[in-house]
Amino acid sequence: MPSIFTRIVAGEVPCHRVYEDEHVIAFLDIAPLSRGHVLVVPKEERERLHELSPQSAEALGRALRAVAAAVVKATGCADYNVLQNNGTAAHQAVMHVHFHVIPKEPGGAGLGLKWDAGTAGPGAAELAERIRAAITPA
Amino acid sequence: MPSIFTRIVAGEVPCHRVYEDEHVIAFLDIAPLSRGHVLVVPKEERERLHELSPQSAEALGRALRAVAAAVVKATGCADYNVLQNNGTAAHQAVMHVHFHVIPKEPGGAGLGLKWDAGTAGPGAAELAERIRAAITPA
Repeated sequence: MPSIFTRIVAGEVPCHRVYEDEHVIAFLDIAPLSRGHVLVVPKEERERLHELSPQSAEALGRALRAVAAAVVKATGCADYNVLQNNGTAAHQAVMHVHFHVIPKEPGGAGLGLKWDAGTAGPGAAELAERIRAAITPA
Repeated sequence: MPSIFTRIVAGEVPCHRVYEDEHVIAFLDIAPLSRGHVLVVPKEERERLHELSPQSAEALGRALRAVAAAVVKATGCADYNVLQNNGTAAHQAVMHVHFHVIPKEPGGAGLGLKWDAGTAGPGAAELAERIRAAITPA
Protein backbone atom coordinates (compact mmCIF):
# COMPACT_ATOMS: atom_id res chain seq x y z
CA MET A 1 0.00 0.00 0.00
CA PRO A 2 1.45 3.41 -0.95
CA SER A 3 2.36 5.71 1.91
CA ILE A 4 0.59 9.01 2.48
CA PHE A 5 3.69 10.67 1.01
CA THR A 6 3.48 8.63 -2.20
CA ARG A 7 -0.16 9.74 -2.45
CA ILE A 8 0.97 13.37 -1.99
CA VAL A 9 3.60 12.90 -4.73
CA ALA A 10 0.86 11.46 -6.97
CA GLY A 11 -1.37 14.46 -6.28
CA GLU A 12 -4.06 12.28 -4.65
CA VAL A 13 -3.68 14.06 -1.31
CA PRO A 14 -3.24 17.85 -1.14
CA CYS A 15 -0.28 19.55 0.51
CA HIS A 16 1.21 23.00 0.94
CA ARG A 17 4.11 22.40 -1.41
CA VAL A 18 7.25 24.51 -1.11
CA TYR A 19 9.66 22.63 -3.43
CA GLU A 20 9.70 19.89 -6.04
CA ASP A 21 12.24 18.37 -8.42
CA GLU A 22 12.64 15.06 -10.23
CA HIS A 23 13.52 13.11 -7.06
CA VAL A 24 12.18 15.14 -4.13
CA ILE A 25 9.08 16.95 -2.91
CA ALA A 26 8.87 19.28 0.13
CA PHE A 27 5.77 20.63 1.86
CA LEU A 28 4.58 22.04 5.19
CA ASP A 29 4.13 19.50 7.99
CA ILE A 30 0.41 19.41 8.90
CA ALA A 31 1.32 19.09 12.60
CA PRO A 32 4.22 21.56 12.86
CA LEU A 33 6.53 21.91 15.85
CA SER A 34 7.08 25.55 14.84
CA ARG A 35 6.17 27.96 12.05
CA GLY A 36 7.83 26.87 8.81
CA HIS A 37 8.25 23.19 9.78
CA VAL A 38 8.75 21.49 6.41
CA LEU A 39 9.07 17.84 5.34
CA VAL A 40 11.56 16.97 2.59
CA VAL A 41 10.63 13.64 1.01
CA PRO A 42 12.18 11.44 -1.69
CA LYS A 43 9.73 10.33 -4.37
CA GLU A 44 11.38 6.91 -4.16
CA GLU A 45 9.25 4.91 -1.73
CA ARG A 46 11.60 3.47 0.90
CA GLU A 47 11.12 3.12 4.64
CA ARG A 48 14.63 4.02 5.85
CA LEU A 49 17.43 6.31 4.72
CA HIS A 50 19.94 3.53 4.15
CA GLU A 51 17.53 1.78 1.76
CA LEU A 52 17.43 4.71 -0.71
CA SER A 53 19.27 4.78 -4.02
CA PRO A 54 22.40 6.96 -4.08
CA GLN A 55 20.56 9.21 -6.57
CA SER A 56 17.71 9.89 -4.16
CA ALA A 57 20.11 10.44 -1.26
CA GLU A 58 22.15 12.93 -3.26
CA ALA A 59 19.05 14.79 -4.43
CA LEU A 60 17.84 14.95 -0.81
CA GLY A 61 21.11 16.57 0.23
CA ARG A 62 20.73 19.23 -2.45
CA ALA A 63 17.06 19.81 -1.66
CA LEU A 64 17.66 20.05 2.10
CA ARG A 65 20.12 22.87 1.57
CA ALA A 66 17.77 24.76 -0.77
CA VAL A 67 14.70 24.26 1.44
CA ALA A 68 16.57 25.21 4.63
CA ALA A 69 17.79 28.42 2.97
CA ALA A 70 14.25 29.29 1.87
CA VAL A 71 12.77 28.53 5.31
CA VAL A 72 15.38 30.77 6.97
CA LYS A 73 14.64 33.55 4.48
CA ALA A 74 10.85 33.26 4.71
CA THR A 75 10.60 32.90 8.49
CA GLY A 76 13.55 35.08 9.52
CA CYS A 77 14.60 32.29 11.91
CA ALA A 78 18.22 31.19 11.30
CA ASP A 79 18.25 28.50 14.01
CA TYR A 80 16.74 25.16 13.02
CA ASN A 81 17.04 21.40 13.35
CA VAL A 82 17.10 18.86 10.55
CA LEU A 83 15.84 15.47 11.70
CA GLN A 84 15.21 12.15 9.99
CA ASN A 85 13.85 9.21 11.99
CA ASN A 86 14.20 5.54 11.08
CA GLY A 87 12.01 2.97 12.83
CA THR A 88 9.19 3.27 15.33
CA ALA A 89 11.62 3.18 18.27
CA ALA A 90 13.32 6.23 16.74
CA HIS A 91 9.99 8.11 16.49
CA GLN A 92 9.27 7.44 12.79
CA ALA A 93 5.51 7.83 12.24
CA VAL A 94 5.15 7.59 8.44
CA MET A 95 7.08 4.64 7.05
CA HIS A 96 8.46 6.50 4.02
CA VAL A 97 11.77 8.37 4.38
CA HIS A 98 11.34 12.04 5.30
CA PHE A 99 13.56 14.80 6.66
CA HIS A 100 12.08 17.42 8.98
CA VAL A 101 13.35 21.00 8.73
CA ILE A 102 12.21 22.57 12.00
CA PRO A 103 12.81 26.25 12.84
CA LYS A 104 13.84 26.80 16.46
CA GLU A 105 12.04 29.97 17.46
CA PRO A 106 13.50 32.45 19.95
CA GLY A 107 10.47 31.74 22.16
CA GLY A 108 11.42 28.08 22.34
CA ALA A 109 8.96 26.49 19.87
CA GLY A 110 10.59 23.80 17.75
CA LEU A 111 12.25 20.46 18.37
CA GLY A 112 13.08 19.42 21.94
CA LEU A 113 16.13 17.22 22.45
CA LYS A 114 17.22 15.06 25.36
CA TRP A 115 20.98 14.56 25.13
CA ASP A 116 22.32 11.84 27.40
CA ALA A 117 25.88 11.48 26.10
CA GLY A 118 28.32 8.83 27.20
CA THR A 119 32.01 8.36 26.44
CA ALA A 120 33.61 6.55 23.52
CA GLY A 121 35.08 3.75 25.64
CA PRO A 122 37.88 1.30 24.90
CA GLY A 123 36.08 -0.49 22.04
CA ALA A 124 35.93 2.60 19.82
CA ALA A 125 38.82 1.75 17.48
CA GLU A 126 37.46 -1.73 16.79
CA LEU A 127 33.91 -0.38 16.29
CA ALA A 128 35.15 2.24 13.82
CA GLU A 129 36.99 -0.47 11.91
CA ARG A 130 33.81 -2.59 11.72
CA ILE A 131 31.76 0.35 10.40
CA ARG A 132 34.50 1.28 7.92
CA ALA A 133 34.64 -2.29 6.65
CA ALA A 134 30.84 -2.27 6.17
CA ILE A 135 30.80 0.81 3.89
CA THR A 136 29.55 0.10 0.38
CA PRO A 137 30.52 3.04 -1.85
CA ALA A 138 27.74 4.50 -4.02
CA MET B 1 39.96 30.11 13.56
CA PRO B 2 39.41 26.65 12.07
CA SER B 3 36.84 24.45 13.79
CA ILE B 4 37.80 21.22 15.54
CA PHE B 5 36.31 19.41 12.51
CA THR B 6 38.57 21.30 10.07
CA ARG B 7 41.50 20.26 12.26
CA ILE B 8 40.30 16.64 12.08
CA VAL B 9 40.03 16.91 8.27
CA ALA B 10 43.59 18.29 8.20
CA GLY B 11 44.82 15.37 10.32
CA GLU B 12 45.88 17.67 13.18
CA VAL B 13 43.42 16.06 15.60
CA PRO B 14 42.92 12.27 15.63
CA CYS B 15 39.56 10.60 15.12
CA HIS B 16 38.05 7.15 14.66
CA ARG B 17 37.33 7.59 10.98
CA VAL B 18 34.67 5.43 9.30
CA TYR B 19 34.33 7.15 5.89
CA GLU B 20 36.02 9.76 3.72
CA ASP B 21 35.61 11.10 0.20
CA GLU B 22 36.51 14.32 -1.64
CA HIS B 23 33.84 16.39 0.16
CA VAL B 24 32.98 14.54 3.37
CA ILE B 25 34.56 12.85 6.39
CA ALA B 26 32.75 10.69 8.96
CA PHE B 27 34.01 9.48 12.34
CA LEU B 28 32.78 8.25 15.73
CA ASP B 29 31.39 10.94 18.05
CA ILE B 30 33.67 11.13 21.10
CA ALA B 31 30.62 11.62 23.36
CA PRO B 32 28.17 9.13 21.84
CA LEU B 33 24.48 8.88 22.69
CA SER B 34 24.63 5.19 21.75
CA ARG B 35 27.08 2.66 20.31
CA GLY B 36 27.88 3.55 16.68
CA HIS B 37 27.01 7.27 16.98
CA VAL B 38 28.80 8.80 13.98
CA LEU B 39 29.30 12.39 12.77
CA VAL B 40 29.14 13.06 9.03
CA VAL B 41 30.93 16.34 8.25
CA PRO B 42 31.49 18.36 5.07
CA LYS B 43 35.09 19.39 4.51
CA GLU B 44 33.75 22.78 3.45
CA GLU B 45 33.87 24.94 6.57
CA ARG B 46 30.42 26.47 7.02
CA GLU B 47 28.42 27.00 10.18
CA ARG B 48 24.94 26.11 8.93
CA LEU B 49 23.45 23.72 6.40
CA HIS B 50 21.92 26.42 4.21
CA GLU B 51 25.34 28.09 3.82
CA LEU B 52 26.94 25.05 2.13
CA SER B 53 27.62 24.78 -1.58
CA PRO B 54 25.21 22.53 -3.52
CA GLN B 55 28.18 20.20 -4.15
CA SER B 56 28.83 19.69 -0.44
CA ALA B 57 25.13 19.24 0.28
CA GLU B 58 24.77 16.61 -2.43
CA ALA B 59 27.89 14.76 -1.25
CA LEU B 60 26.51 14.81 2.31
CA GLY B 61 23.29 13.15 1.11
CA ARG B 62 25.24 10.37 -0.59
CA ALA B 63 27.56 9.91 2.39
CA LEU B 64 24.70 9.86 4.92
CA ARG B 65 23.07 6.97 3.09
CA ALA B 66 26.36 5.01 2.88
CA VAL B 67 27.32 5.67 6.50
CA ALA B 68 23.84 4.84 7.82
CA ALA B 69 23.90 1.54 5.93
CA ALA B 70 27.31 0.68 7.39
CA VAL B 71 26.27 1.63 10.93
CA VAL B 72 23.16 -0.57 10.64
CA LYS B 73 25.26 -3.46 9.34
CA ALA B 74 28.04 -3.09 11.93
CA THR B 75 25.82 -2.54 14.98
CA GLY B 76 22.85 -4.72 14.01
CA CYS B 77 20.59 -1.82 15.03
CA ALA B 78 18.20 -0.81 12.19
CA ASP B 79 16.51 2.01 14.14
CA TYR B 80 18.35 5.32 14.15
CA ASN B 81 17.98 9.08 14.04
CA VAL B 82 19.78 11.48 11.72
CA LEU B 83 20.07 14.96 13.24
CA GLN B 84 21.71 18.18 12.15
CA ASN B 85 21.54 21.25 14.42
CA ASN B 86 21.91 24.87 13.31
CA GLY B 87 22.52 27.55 15.93
CA THR B 88 23.10 27.42 19.67
CA ALA B 89 19.35 27.60 20.38
CA ALA B 90 18.97 24.46 18.26
CA HIS B 91 21.66 22.63 20.28
CA GLN B 92 24.58 23.13 17.86
CA ALA B 93 27.82 22.79 19.85
CA VAL B 94 30.52 22.84 17.14
CA MET B 95 29.98 25.70 14.70
CA HIS B 96 30.81 23.67 11.59
CA VAL B 97 28.00 21.76 9.84
CA HIS B 98 27.67 18.13 11.02
CA PHE B 99 25.04 15.40 10.79
CA HIS B 100 24.67 12.94 13.63
CA VAL B 101 23.78 9.32 12.81
CA ILE B 102 22.55 7.94 16.14
CA PRO B 103 21.49 4.29 16.58
CA LYS B 104 18.37 3.91 18.74
CA GLU B 105 19.06 0.81 20.81
CA PRO B 106 16.30 -1.57 21.94
CA GLY B 107 17.26 -0.71 25.53
CA GLY B 108 16.49 2.95 24.86
CA ALA B 109 19.96 4.47 24.47
CA GLY B 110 20.11 7.02 21.66
CA LEU B 111 18.51 10.35 20.90
CA GLY B 112 15.63 11.56 23.06
CA LEU B 113 12.97 13.72 21.41
CA LYS B 114 10.32 16.01 22.85
CA TRP B 115 7.58 16.44 20.25
CA ASP B 116 5.15 19.24 21.01
CA ALA B 117 3.23 19.46 17.74
CA GLY B 118 0.70 22.11 16.87
CA THR B 119 -1.66 22.52 13.93
CA ALA B 120 -0.99 24.12 10.57
CA GLY B 121 -3.41 26.99 11.11
CA PRO B 122 -5.06 29.36 8.64
CA GLY B 123 -1.80 31.03 7.50
CA ALA B 124 -0.34 27.83 6.04
CA ALA B 125 -1.04 28.50 2.36
CA GLU B 126 0.49 31.97 2.54
CA LEU B 127 3.52 30.67 4.48
CA ALA B 128 4.09 27.90 1.91
CA GLU B 129 3.92 30.49 -0.86
CA ARG B 130 6.54 32.64 0.90
CA ILE B 131 8.91 29.68 1.34
CA ARG B 132 8.35 28.56 -2.27
CA ALA B 133 9.15 32.07 -3.50
CA ALA B 134 12.37 32.09 -1.45
CA ILE B 135 13.77 28.90 -3.03
CA THR B 136 16.98 29.46 -4.99
CA PRO B 137 17.61 26.41 -7.18
CA ALA B 138 21.10 24.89 -6.97
